[in-house]
Amino acid sequence: MRLIAFEQEGRPALGARLGDDVVALADAVPGLPADPLAAFAALNLPEGAGELATKLEGAPRRPMAGLTLLPPIPRPGKIICIGLNYVEHAKEGNNPIPDYPAVFMRGPTSLAAHKQALVRPKVSDKFDYEAELVIVIGKRARHLTEENALSHVAGYTCMNEGSVRDYQRKGAQWTMGKNFERTGGIGPEIVTPDELPQGPNALRITSRVNGQVMQDSNTADMIFSVPRILAILSEVMTLEPGDVIATGTPSGVGYPRKPPVFMKPGDTVEIEIEGIGILSNTIEDEAG
Amino acid sequence: MRLIAFEQEGRPALGARLGDDVVALADAVPGLPADPLAAFAALNLPEGAGELATKLEGAPRRPMAGLTLLPPIPRPGKIICIGLNYVEHAKEGNNPIPDYPAVFMRGPTSLAAHKQALVRPKVSDKFDYEAELVIVIGKRARHLTEENALSHVAGYTCMNEGSVRDYQRKGAQWTMGKNFERTGGIGPEIVTPDELPQGPNALRITSRVNGQVMQDSNTADMIFSVPRILAILSEVMTLEPGDVIATGTPSGVGYPRKPPVFMKPGDTVEIEIEGIGILSNTIEDEAG
Repeated sequence: MRLIAFEQEGRPALGARLGDDVVALADAVPGLPADPLAAFAALNLPEGAGELATKLEGAPRRPMAGLTLLPPIPRPGKIICIGLNYVEHAKEGNNPIPDYPAVFMRGPTSLAAHKQALVRPKVSDKFDYEAELVIVIGKRARHLTEENALSHVAGYTCMNEGSVRDYQRKGAQWTMGKNFERTGGIGPEIVTPDELPQGPNALRITSRVNGQVMQDSNTADMIFSVPRILAILSEVMTLEPGDVIATGTPSGVGYPRKPPVFMKPGDTVEIEIEGIGILSNTIEDEAG
Repeated sequence: MRLIAFEQEGRPALGARLGDDVVALADAVPGLPADPLAAFAALNLPEGAGELATKLEGAPRRPMAGLTLLPPIPRPGKIICIGLNYVEHAKEGNNPIPDYPAVFMRGPTSLAAHKQALVRPKVSDKFDYEAELVIVIGKRARHLTEENALSHVAGYTCMNEGSVRDYQRKGAQWTMGKNFERTGGIGPEIVTPDELPQGPNALRITSRVNGQVMQDSNTADMIFSVPRILAILSEVMTLEPGDVIATGTPSGVGYPRKPPVFMKPGDTVEIEIEGIGILSNTIEDEAG
């Protein structure tokens, strides 16, 4: 199943994509809460996936064409990001290989939808791309083990975890460089685990800037695998339905290249993850 | 005006405290959205404060006694924290005086209400207190100046920005030590700026563990003042109604003391800020 969020009469709505069509989940599931995050929790994924798929069959469809997509979870409760989770990426920035993950957070105002332009801020031209696999939580979870972690995952999506490099290093923490307005592309859709029989840690992950491959790796190369990340995070905090976790980027980002490569207005940047899809965003300059 | 959130029939509700009584805002403001964050945005603070005060006058009251308080914004869109914002605190941890703030984020699952117990996690006994002044945003804001910043503030509250010190240093970022479940006390109430004629940067701020004063400073000693913090943050991101910003803690925290002092089960920890109030939490061990 492939879940999206889209704009409907000025409000966010959840949907399921069926080929070139979409079903609004409110049309398929009677009594689903209007708030997207509450609705997502009510779906009770992954257990509820089979029941949802059945309900989608008889529901009214509309064409995907012309829909304005939103981030697949429009306002996550938490946006957790793992840094330096691929050996070659840690090395290219002259960082040590971590034995515990570098964790930071983004706010919802930093997100952008598939096909929405990412914004290069006025104050910096050091706007870098980062291809990442994103985990979307389906069920409340604390103290997960690596063995039971994946049964709490609703699905996966792609992220361009756009980073403003000079602001990332300006203070003692990375947060500011990771939170510029509308710099993090996410989507296009949440792919449920049944569509990924090989699991989340055997997926080719690439980024392309104007068609040129910049990153080309495999999620098998993560230092902390998806189940390990979930166990480590949930030792600390409760993971809630709709929380999203960006799992780090492989080598090939722009800033360590000689000369450096940064995203600039007019560029088209794609993140492709095997079995999940292609997230595409153009870049524009901040207005004003 | 003093705004609270409380539990009402199992759901969060916003209220205004009037002495020993409370008015549920839904009873005073017809058509206020049920979702607390949407309701808070609809109040349009600070401009809307006068109109709200008028509406409260005729509304039905109930006693505060027996109410279960929630964090005054139960689920903020962003919980932004400033680290090392007092010179003596930076020095006590052997940190350089920053020329740009150290910014990190907490998730809503890390918050606890006034009078709710803070949880010392199973995995650490290094659970430290941090008295902080919290800014609550009233109006959407980007690119604020120091001159217009305060006109976007709904009010202020207190925080015990509880920090698990070994986990704060375990990875390259502080996030994990700042996000343990229910470790950050916040409240008891949001105090609107009209009740603080001296402004936010002339307030005595103290913490007490079992009645003993551990921190005793003044918000005048901040390296980055409240207006400066708002200008710096909004250069990067849009601040939204209900976003909360913890502005850093003064010297006197537990970990650099000889011997170190940490919060332990049975302790009562109070954060007092002049003109705002006293946040009080006991400490309990994580269950299980």
